Amino acid sequence: MITGFETADIRFPTSLSLDGSDAMNPDPDYSAAYVWMTTDAGDSGHSFVFTIGRGNDVQVAAIEALRERFVGRDADELLGDMGAVWRDLVHDSQLRWLGPEKGVMHMAIGAVVNALWDLKAKRAGLPLWELLASMSPEELVGLADFRYLSDALTRDEALEILRAAEPGRAARREQLLSDGYPAYATSPGWLGYDDEKLARLCREAVDDGFELIKLKVGGSVDDDVRRLKIAREVVGDDVRIAVDANQRWDVGEAIEWMRALEPYDLAWIEEPTNPDDVLGHAAIARGVSMPVATGEHMANRVMFKQFLQAEALQVLQIDATRVAGVNENLAILLLAAKFGVPVCPHAGGVGLCEAVQHLSMFDFVAVSGSIDGRVIEFVDHLHEHFVTPVEVRDGRYLAPTAPGAGTEMTTRG
Amino acid sequence: MITGFETADIRFPTSLSLDGSDAMNPDPDYSAAYVWMTTDAGDSGHSFVFTIGRGNDVQVAAIEALRERFVGRDADELLGDMGAVWRDLVHDSQLRWLGPEKGVMHMAIGAVVNALWDLKAKRAGLPLWELLASMSPEELVGLADFRYLSDALTRDEALEILRAAEPGRAARREQLLSDGYPAYATSPGWLGYDDEKLARLCREAVDDGFELIKLKVGGSVDDDVRRLKIAREVVGDDVRIAVDANQRWDVGEAIEWMRALEPYDLAWIEEPTNPDDVLGHAAIARGVSMPVATGEHMANRVMFKQFLQAEALQVLQIDATRVAGVNENLAILLLAAKFGVPVCPHAGGVGLCEAVQHLSMFDFVAVSGSIDGRVIEFVDHLHEHFVTPVEVRDGRYLAPTAPGAGTEMTTRG
Repeated sequence: MITGFETADIRFPTSLSLDGSDAMNPDPDYSAAYVWMTTDAGDSGHSFVFTIGRGNDVQVAAIEALRERFVGRDADELLGDMGAVWRDLVHDSQLRWLGPEKGVMHMAIGAVVNALWDLKAKRAGLPLWELLASMSPEELVGLADFRYLSDALTRDEALEILRAAEPGRAARREQLLSDGYPAYATSPGWLGYDDEKLARLCREAVDDGFELIKLKVGGSVDDDVRRLKIAREVVGDDVRIAVDANQRWDVGEAIEWMRALEPYDLAWIEEPTNPDDVLGHAAIARGVSMPVATGEHMANRVMFKQFLQAEALQVLQIDATRVAGVNENLAILLLAAKFGVPVCPHAGGVGLCEAVQHLSMFDFVAVSGSIDGRVIEFVDHLHEHFVTPVEVRDGRYLAPTAPGAGTEMTTRG
Repeated sequence: MITGFETADIRFPTSLSLDGSDAMNPDPDYSAAYVWMTTDAGDSGHSFVFTIGRGNDVQVAAIEALRERFVGRDADELLGDMGAVWRDLVHDSQLRWLGPEKGVMHMAIGAVVNALWDLKAKRAGLPLWELLASMSPEELVGLADFRYLSDALTRDEALEILRAAEPGRAARREQLLSDGYPAYATSPGWLGYDDEKLARLCREAVDDGFELIKLKVGGSVDDDVRRLKIAREVVGDDVRIAVDANQRWDVGEAIEWMRALEPYDLAWIEEPTNPDDVLGHAAIARGVSMPVATGEHMANRVMFKQFLQAEALQVLQIDATRVAGVNENLAILLLAAKFGVPVCPHAGGVGLCEAVQHLSMFDFVAVSGSIDGRVIEFVDHLHEHFVTPVEVRDGRYLAPTAPGAGTEMTTRG
């Protein structure tokens, strides 16, 4: 039985060092709206929503509003039908009015769903990616919700995708355990850093084995060109460089700006404009020569569906705490597989690396079956606050082996 | 100076009578997350976010998080540049992370912005619609934010629209004061009502002078056909009937279902599917013979922009408390005018009629300049809780004359 439901408002003063500074977020204070549920069996499940400071209290209040849905409930029953848990919360008509399926309330649902996944994985004695990759295609489609998706992906099509990936599961699991999963480095490129620090961090990233680095852009074209020249000179031609505008531009502005950066052989332009703008991203994708990447601020699977239908993104960036948890990210992974688009998760922040690595590894083993063109963001920051911090070596995430979802913190605020 | 900032969690047990019941919301408890600011001059501004019950406390918490932005501030300074107030809140990078521009935090910003508009209108001694309609085109474009809109509507284009409407302002103001603005009746059609009650309420609506009534659909096709037959028989051929599915269907299902209802000469099909689904609504609009209406759950102006660009709606339904207040609704009215689409606001709930009538009347006087094909939803419910309740006579909203935005309640919870 679930006997405890606790929350904490955890904030780190990251704005002091300009870590995480970009064109839209000049001074984030990386924060977590943290939740953990305890049971009468003495175990617990932990998760959180990542925010960047102000409003973290509102996010905590939204999670608290879900307390009554869990305390006193039979944990085995909840964990035995995680699809039903998800649908009961997301389709609750009164809560749904607050979105629908977006913003603070939707992320709160994601946090409690993910806390249960942490508990379920711990009880199974498996890291989350292995737990998910041990489930049958039928069990997995039962977790996803195809409501509003059927014009792009039906339950039967999802089942086919998962069945097609079954034969290779064991071999890919072994490959993950021996080689890990490719990471890319964002640490060098925050806008608040000066050129000297940029160059030094680029060099360190290459020395650390990263094959892709990402720079923030969108302050001024001249600054972007200068910083890209520095980065390209330091990393050489074999390391890929992506850029991230963090929603800075209008549609026309994005196309014009990115044409000025075309000479620098960019891996992708990330978040060129507002994350709700399906048609805008489609226009940008048609107007520039590099792939368009987005997703970290995309509210739900219905938005991802449209971005794929409209060919508005070529790199799909899931986030572990933006949508309603593992179940919704599973639906998004299935959509990406259907459309043949690589998933390169957003991470960094507080615990996003710890959380999202499980989804990419599960995707490789049991959904897309591919690691080609895929890479998980990595920022070497705040990992010490997690019980099982990520391990990144030679530019690759090592497959976690500890039971759970990686989302348990060492601090409770 | 703003000296007080108070909130209240106000709920009405509407689920007991099935008022407000539809295919997605079987048992709403109409609620308001209410906020009022008081000043050292002894006056006050009031507004709210409408919710349907659970989670109203979360909405209140989000409004409370904005307290520190107002208490101690110079009221004249705030009211003197409402465009700046809006931008400071909506573009606050840390708060923005919780959306961006959607859900609980965005609606909270709407509530405080609207409370200031109520105060500003009271100080001007004018109802909000008259205050807005007394502002110059230059002042009005200064209130709207064209960020992310410029591929569909620029500031200069907006200025042109507003200038074109200037010459007729005085005549249309007189017309409003003498004739009011057309209303339509939703009260007859809630799904929870039996056939006898449906017929009786349809008859009453016609007797009350309404020229359009709306029925909820989406429970079962057979029920919908039966109810439409009853309604059409009662109201005759001259009263229009709209239907509302409240997001019940997937895209293919919506098209199939609505084809079965085509014989009943429908004014529009409202919310056929998820409100985020621009491409889905565009497909439905191509697939059915009646106009598609949506907007009450649309999160922000970027979504409205795309629905217009994609011809995904033919009737645009603004809501007074879903987006970030009067300023964002002004941008949406300008978009609608640019695309030549009629605005027929969502209302009902708690105080939505009181609030949104001002926007339609302002639109008629100073933006679109037209009343053709436009009609404001009316539900005769809970108006007694407002200091200046709407007056609807012979199927028309009388133009309010009391100073303010109509959003002050008689109860404080």
